[in-house]
Amino acid sequence: MESSASSFVDPAADTAPLHPDDEKHNSIADRADTRLAREAHVGQRPGTLTIRAGAMAPRLFLLSYDEVSCTEQEYSDYDELWRFFSTHPELRHWIDVRGYNNLPLMERIMQDFDLHPLQMEDVLGDYQRAKVDVFGDNRLFLVSRMTEFTKLLEIDDDQLSIFTGPNYVLTFQDDYNDCLDTVRQRIRSGYSQIKRKPPLYLAYALTDVVLDQYYPTMAAIGDYIERLEDRILQDRPDRRVLGRILRMKKDIIRFRRFVYPEREKIAEILRMPDDIVPDEMKVYFRDCYDHAIQALDLAESYRESVSSLVELFMSNQSNRMNEVMKVLTIISSIFIPLSFVVGLYGMNFQRENPHGGINYLNMPELYSPWGYPILLAILAVIVMFQLLYFYRKGWLTNR
Amino acid sequence: MESSASSFVDPAADTAPLHPDDEKHNSIADRADTRLAREAHVGQRPGTLTIRAGAMAPRLFLLSYDEVSCTEQEYSDYDELWRFFSTHPELRHWIDVRGYNNLPLMERIMQDFDLHPLQMEDVLGDYQRAKVDVFGDNRLFLVSRMTEFTKLLEIDDDQLSIFTGPNYVLTFQDDYNDCLDTVRQRIRSGYSQIKRKPPLYLAYALTDVVLDQYYPTMAAIGDYIERLEDRILQDRPDRRVLGRILRMKKDIIRFRRFVYPEREKIAEILRMPDDIVPDEMKVYFRDCYDHAIQALDLAESYRESVSSLVELFMSNQSNRMNEVMKVLTIISSIFIPLSFVVGLYGMNFQRENPHGGINYLNMPELYSPWGYPILLAILAVIVMFQLLYFYRKGWLTNR
Amino acid sequence: MESSASSFVDPAADTAPLHPDDEKHNSIADRADTRLAREAHVGQRPGTLTIRAGAMAPRLFLLSYDEVSCTEQEYSDYDELWRFFSTHPELRHWIDVRGYNNLPLMERIMQDFDLHPLQMEDVLGDYQRAKVDVFGDNRLFLVSRMTEFTKLLEIDDDQLSIFTGPNYVLTFQDDYNDCLDTVRQRIRSGYSQIKRKPPLYLAYALTDVVLDQYYPTMAAIGDYIERLEDRILQDRPDRRVLGRILRMKKDIIRFRRFVYPEREKIAEILRMPDDIVPDEMKVYFRDCYDHAIQALDLAESYRESVSSLVELFMSNQSNRMNEVMKVLTIISSIFIPLSFVVGLYGMNFQRENPHGGINYLNMPELYSPWGYPILLAILAVIVMFQLLYFYRKGWLTNR
Amino acid sequence: MESSASSFVDPAADTAPLHPDDEKHNSIADRADTRLAREAHVGQRPGTLTIRAGAMAPRLFLLSYDEVSCTEQEYSDYDELWRFFSTHPELRHWIDVRGYNNLPLMERIMQDFDLHPLQMEDVLGDYQRAKVDVFGDNRLFLVSRMTEFTKLLEIDDDQLSIFTGPNYVLTFQDDYNDCLDTVRQRIRSGYSQIKRKPPLYLAYALTDVVLDQYYPTMAAIGDYIERLEDRILQDRPDRRVLGRILRMKKDIIRFRRFVYPEREKIAEILRMPDDIVPDEMKVYFRDCYDHAIQALDLAESYRESVSSLVELFMSNQSNRMNEVMKVLTIISSIFIPLSFVVGLYGMNFQRENPHGGINYLNMPELYSPWGYPILLAILAVIVMFQLLYFYRKGWLTNR
Amino acid sequence: MESSASSFVDPAADTAPLHPDDEKHNSIADRADTRLAREAHVGQRPGTLTIRAGAMAPRLFLLSYDEVSCTEQEYSDYDELWRFFSTHPELRHWIDVRGYNNLPLMERIMQDFDLHPLQMEDVLGDYQRAKVDVFGDNRLFLVSRMTEFTKLLEIDDDQLSIFTGPNYVLTFQDDYNDCLDTVRQRIRSGYSQIKRKPPLYLAYALTDVVLDQYYPTMAAIGDYIERLEDRILQDRPDRRVLGRILRMKKDIIRFRRFVYPEREKIAEILRMPDDIVPDEMKVYFRDCYDHAIQALDLAESYRESVSSLVELFMSNQSNRMNEVMKVLTIISSIFIPLSFVVGLYGMNFQRENPHGGINYLNMPELYSPWGYPILLAILAVIVMFQLLYFYRKGWLTNR
Repeated sequence: MESSASSFVDPAADTAPLHPDDEKHNSIADRADTRLAREAHVGQRPGTLTIRAGAMAPRLFLLSYDEVSCTEQEYSDYDELWRFFSTHPELRHWIDVRGYNNLPLMERIMQDFDLHPLQMEDVLGDYQRAKVDVFGDNRLFLVSRMTEFTKLLEIDDDQLSIFTGPNYVLTFQDDYNDCLDTVRQRIRSGYSQIKRKPPLYLAYALTDVVLDQYYPTMAAIGDYIERLEDRILQDRPDRRVLGRILRMKKDIIRFRRFVYPEREKIAEILRMPDDIVPDEMKVYFRDCYDHAIQALDLAESYRESVSSLVELFMSNQSNRMNEVMKVLTIISSIFIPLSFVVGLYGMNFQRENPHGGINYLNMPELYSPWGYPILLAILAVIVMFQLLYFYRKGWLTNR
Repeated sequence: MESSASSFVDPAADTAPLHPDDEKHNSIADRADTRLAREAHVGQRPGTLTIRAGAMAPRLFLLSYDEVSCTEQEYSDYDELWRFFSTHPELRHWIDVRGYNNLPLMERIMQDFDLHPLQMEDVLGDYQRAKVDVFGDNRLFLVSRMTEFTKLLEIDDDQLSIFTGPNYVLTFQDDYNDCLDTVRQRIRSGYSQIKRKPPLYLAYALTDVVLDQYYPTMAAIGDYIERLEDRILQDRPDRRVLGRILRMKKDIIRFRRFVYPEREKIAEILRMPDDIVPDEMKVYFRDCYDHAIQALDLAESYRESVSSLVELFMSNQSNRMNEVMKVLTIISSIFIPLSFVVGLYGMNFQRENPHGGINYLNMPELYSPWGYPILLAILAVIVMFQLLYFYRKGWLTNR
Repeated sequence: MESSASSFVDPAADTAPLHPDDEKHNSIADRADTRLAREAHVGQRPGTLTIRAGAMAPRLFLLSYDEVSCTEQEYSDYDELWRFFSTHPELRHWIDVRGYNNLPLMERIMQDFDLHPLQMEDVLGDYQRAKVDVFGDNRLFLVSRMTEFTKLLEIDDDQLSIFTGPNYVLTFQDDYNDCLDTVRQRIRSGYSQIKRKPPLYLAYALTDVVLDQYYPTMAAIGDYIERLEDRILQDRPDRRVLGRILRMKKDIIRFRRFVYPEREKIAEILRMPDDIVPDEMKVYFRDCYDHAIQALDLAESYRESVSSLVELFMSNQSNRMNEVMKVLTIISSIFIPLSFVVGLYGMNFQRENPHGGINYLNMPELYSPWGYPILLAILAVIVMFQLLYFYRKGWLTNR
Repeated sequence: MESSASSFVDPAADTAPLHPDDEKHNSIADRADTRLAREAHVGQRPGTLTIRAGAMAPRLFLLSYDEVSCTEQEYSDYDELWRFFSTHPELRHWIDVRGYNNLPLMERIMQDFDLHPLQMEDVLGDYQRAKVDVFGDNRLFLVSRMTEFTKLLEIDDDQLSIFTGPNYVLTFQDDYNDCLDTVRQRIRSGYSQIKRKPPLYLAYALTDVVLDQYYPTMAAIGDYIERLEDRILQDRPDRRVLGRILRMKKDIIRFRRFVYPEREKIAEILRMPDDIVPDEMKVYFRDCYDHAIQALDLAESYRESVSSLVELFMSNQSNRMNEVMKVLTIISSIFIPLSFVVGLYGMNFQRENPHGGINYLNMPELYSPWGYPILLAILAVIVMFQLLYFYRKGWLTNR
Repeated sequence: MESSASSFVDPAADTAPLHPDDEKHNSIADRADTRLAREAHVGQRPGTLTIRAGAMAPRLFLLSYDEVSCTEQEYSDYDELWRFFSTHPELRHWIDVRGYNNLPLMERIMQDFDLHPLQMEDVLGDYQRAKVDVFGDNRLFLVSRMTEFTKLLEIDDDQLSIFTGPNYVLTFQDDYNDCLDTVRQRIRSGYSQIKRKPPLYLAYALTDVVLDQYYPTMAAIGDYIERLEDRILQDRPDRRVLGRILRMKKDIIRFRRFVYPEREKIAEILRMPDDIVPDEMKVYFRDCYDHAIQALDLAESYRESVSSLVELFMSNQSNRMNEVMKVLTIISSIFIPLSFVVGLYGMNFQRENPHGGINYLNMPELYSPWGYPILLAILAVIVMFQLLYFYRKGWLTNR
């Protein structure tokens, strides 16, 4: 992710299109939201498990560890995984299910680990806000939303569902790739706290890594905002720039909608009684809480930036109108009076009176030997005065 | 509803009128609200039952079930329904009254089922926010608002009033068609939880289906917002588009006003003591609560989208002004100086001095054999420089 | 009130002036507020009774009833009223004082009914937000604000002050006409609940009727908003329309300021202990509470409508500027190039070389027998191309 | 103050400058705030007493009273005051210190009356929000902000600090003139409640008079807003009007900042236990509370008015642009086509073919005896059609 | 800092560039935020100490004092410091660490003073909101943010981390220069309260001095806002002024984000039990609380000012457009009709009929002896009428 983020600030990219696929992705309306709204299943029995379209086939990973050792394996057969898991109660386990597209398997896992159908529905459903539920005696069900700022310049979000148990943590996610590898590394390494602490600590570590992930997402958003600002200041932003800005505003608001419940979730954990979340663990969650608040502060900050960009865009648009008007005014103001003067001497007033005699008052200038040069000089003086006037108004220099 | 929703995204529809009846329905002022405000009956005795104008004649449905069986019948005679209901206390019943337009019948139902006149007034009245009241010992009176995005591109709302009793649920609604059929299907089918749980579960199922219904409504709104955005980006939006946008904004705010009390209602249910709403049921209502919050999030999201559309519209309007100005400026700037030049050579300065002699300085160009072609060449050069200037300003290419 | 409200929707009225007295009443600054602020008496002893300027002479009405009978009389002499009142403790009484302009009388009433000077100051003062105070053992002092949308298209408000006592209700208001007649009718009629319940029920009924009165006020506002919208869409709104809109916005905010404390007042009543407001009465006040919230919802809704009207007005103003610009651009763009062309052939380049010979290159077109018709044809073609261009830009058809 | 307030509504003043010193006082940035911010003393020992620059020399007033008598004297020597005060414990005293500029004296008063250095710092400091502190056993320290709308059209504010003691009230203020004379009058007069009640009542009376003072301040603001509105509607507002409006907005927000803590202060007093503020006194403070809320409501109302003024100003500015454009468009649209026509007949197509013969098609109109009159008639018809077109668009009549 | 602040109000600076490095620092997007977001370390073990890039090498200062004496020294060797510290338990110590760039040293300090790794991570991290944590028995961990308005016209912020202990205060900051010298001076001087009170008082004094520091920061912001306003009113603001305004808005919002948690922090301290923060100390923190609220009020005030500046800028931009339009309109309106008139008399209608005879109606004016002077007079009259019209519209005088 970092690499893609840093590619946005490549100065050479400034003339690149603002979006890899500029024609298609210009909707302000939040298509993700629309899709979500459309796919909800009306009137279904609550707790009905349905696999959403496009879900991937499940892959099963088991990471088993105690204070000194650590085994890690991917199982193609759930029975094998279950056998290993149930015969090693002395170890701690992280059962990591990636992909949902196997309803019977999901139902078996639900029964084996004693989950509630409504919880399983939250796991498999399209979208669930970050939340925490207590169930059983002191087990926790945690939902986090993982975010990523994609190369399509949109915020992509995936759901991480975490169930804690006496000696295990069970996680579900829809994607094979995730941002949890740093946690795996820490377990594999010899000296991690995760190996010495209860499974809740692992749940905390996973929650924390998701929160940490918000910062590169926001960094990418911040870089993109800067690119948009540069575009506006280049002074030739086309209409699509406004569309991009407004869409970015939408995305930031969406992002805020991910983070805000995260904060509420952690606040709820901090309020839980000692037998569910011991005080020793609350120190860690309080740290998470600080991070969530700072992520919200940043999102708020970017939202303000984007609103300022809209104002800047509008002012720029008005400014370019001003510029167009000035060109028109300068050229018209100079040449329209000149045209009048030359039109004046294009009139056909006659020197010869048809009734005889000379109309001496009819345009004697035309007959003067110096008429034409003097006129040209007068025209030049008029133009110079006008240019001076416009210069002093600053219309010629500052655009 | 889904089918109508999907018809909105038909790409061929993009040039279709934005509204089936474009001339009539363009009010921003919320006529529904106005009507509501106008129809309220001032100073009436509280609890006075009045049937509102346009209400439909009541139809009575009874769905009786126990864990294994299920009978379903429409009764044209309330006495028959009451006889069956009161002689089968071993069954659970869903008495489903659709339409109110029979005051004596309504009063009889009120007495038979021991309802408060103020509750009955809420049932029959025009509009009641979603709410929950406890009455009797542990009976609930629930009001939900059902929504639908109609083909007239407005949000239509109907009221669902639910009373729970020891072995029955009594519902009222004004329309014959509703969105509750999925619940009926689940009861008719053999294995539904509804048949094994107390009537409160049925009340929950009905509340839940209304909440689920909000999602297709919002999907339709989302599609419509996208159509409006496409219209704006087609770059020739007429004034009615803004009217539509503003009306849609109004509708989303109205929608939010339906959902917000729904959330409060469920939060109140979750706070109720165990003897009214048992913990086992609260798990289900907590699920409803999540749905209500997500519906609010979506409404908030669409509201932002619509505000962005207004900004986009305004910017587009300003952009088209810019475009008009550029055409004027380009044409004027090119031809006004040219006109001056040709006017210059239309002057009548005389070569012959009336006092004799030749005014050699008076426009000798006119007498040169190459005067005219040279002038034309000069004019062409002027035009080319101007075109170059405008091109470099980007006025010729980007509109 | 209903009749005046309905007169606003008279379609023929659409070309009528937006205000009966258009020149005078166009202030956005809330003159009512200003007046209020100016009239407050600085530094007076608290509880000093002063009659405000313009108050009317008091009229005293007594409505005495028990479960079966009802006597009603206006007294010109307070002593008579007091004699009847104090000699009939077995009846319930509604002492209805309309108009304040008699300080000694007000002080006597204050002493006879044991009111606090600060309460009496609230009664006689200019403006008091809706509120409830408990005094004595379990007596209530209630203030409501009655509203009316006047023919001057402003919201008029009057204050209704209610004191409850063991067997009476004492009300004060400044106007002779009020909206409480429906309550009087219910008492006069044989079977009203008011006659069977304690005086608090009458206080409730009066509070409820004031709340009900908010709906026609809002209906009138809603109608007026629609008229303003029609005006804007007629496309020739003058500047006064914006003044009206902004004033209406102000009025709606003022209206909201009346309703909001009303809601707080009733919420406070609902929180009162059982010996002051018995549970049986709370059912009724809870109904009031729903009404107050819905009135607030409506006010919020209208406020949004009015904001949308401002946006529509601004867009329309910009649109008319666009239209003006298009006319200018079309006419200038067509005729300025034509003028150049005809100016070109108005030049005086000479065919005869003064040094002898013919300048064949000097404007040979002028000497062609078909010069003029060909030129006219060329001009016509230029015009047609320009019209085609403008037509395809949509400048000719959509305004 | 009233007199200055009423001078603002003098109708003859409408053409007067909006500000007595229009060139200097046009800052939106709140210079008062800036000054405040700049003068704060960084890093000083808390409770360090420093006299701010420009403070006046102290004057000492003592008003001593019991239920029947009242003595009042200004002391130039604090020792004398203290001697009288300490030898008359049977009387109640109001020690009124105006001006601070004598540090040793301030420190002596602090010690004699047993005040905390931090409190004294609040008294002498530049700015302290309204607040209440309890100290000693049941003594109160109250801060109020007195406001005045000055002839410079700004809100001036001074601080009133009140300390209560067992038989005295000690007040500090920086200005010799204040708005407390009405309270002094009430004490001097024979029958005031102040003389019969404990010192807390005097503190209440002083707080109340400051709150009452807010209303004339707001009345003056309201009048000024009306003047600004009239200016805008006179249709020739220069740029300074917007500056004034924005400054007034700033001032109203500043005013709100004075009133809001006042409300909080009184709410805190109402929550105090009975031994500090007895219930009997709370009735009076509750009255204050109502006044503070209404003052906030008014401030909110004026803030809305000022926002509407900004919109009106912007619309007016756009309107004047429209007007300018219409003049340009009408004149250009009429004369540019006419110029083309006359240019057409200024062309020099030759009737005589240089090769002999007559070019009959070359502008035969020029040779017709009715050519010129017919052309003039055609021009007149063109003008009339254009005028009709513009008239029907409403461009000629409504500006 | 004061000196740099006062340099901003130098009147001669008004034509100086608004920013010392105008080309580079014009981003609205909050680069500081972006940088922060980018640097966060994803997925690290919580409590992992990392030194951020660019941190300075640590310098160690020890200030030891009792009620009468005071020793102060910089130690290059931590062991020496620790030796002195641990062998003088009878003194109070302020260990002042400036700069972090020595990880082993930081870890040693952490262990010696018994700090939590998460706290140390907050100390060394990039950014931590102001907060307070209780740890150990009654030790406090306080974070404050120090601000400064730099010569680059940006708000610079540094973090001050304070740990209290039984007889010491331990502070960390990243910069060698700080704003705490006034506190050091007070300790060095003979009579400071700090020397007589527990270490918490020193922590308070440090917190207070940071809060006091906010005022000069805001004064500098206020001065800069005034400069921006003057720039706008000079009437030739270029586009960069809007960029500056928007950036200043961003900075004020950022500043508010520093102050707001400061207020929350102090409120939390005020709620702490007596054994952690004794009542005697709360008097002082309450004073801090007042300062924090006033700083927030000021920030709010400046935010409003900046929004008003945006409105003023937009109005000014529109105003300048108006001015341009007026020049165009006046010149066009005067000369286009004149051009028509002179074009009229440039037509070539022929007096001689080719078929013989005289076309007396063809432009007889041209043959009149007074034709030309009369025409010039008519033109002059037209111009005068037009000038009068424009003058009365106010287009000539007010720009």
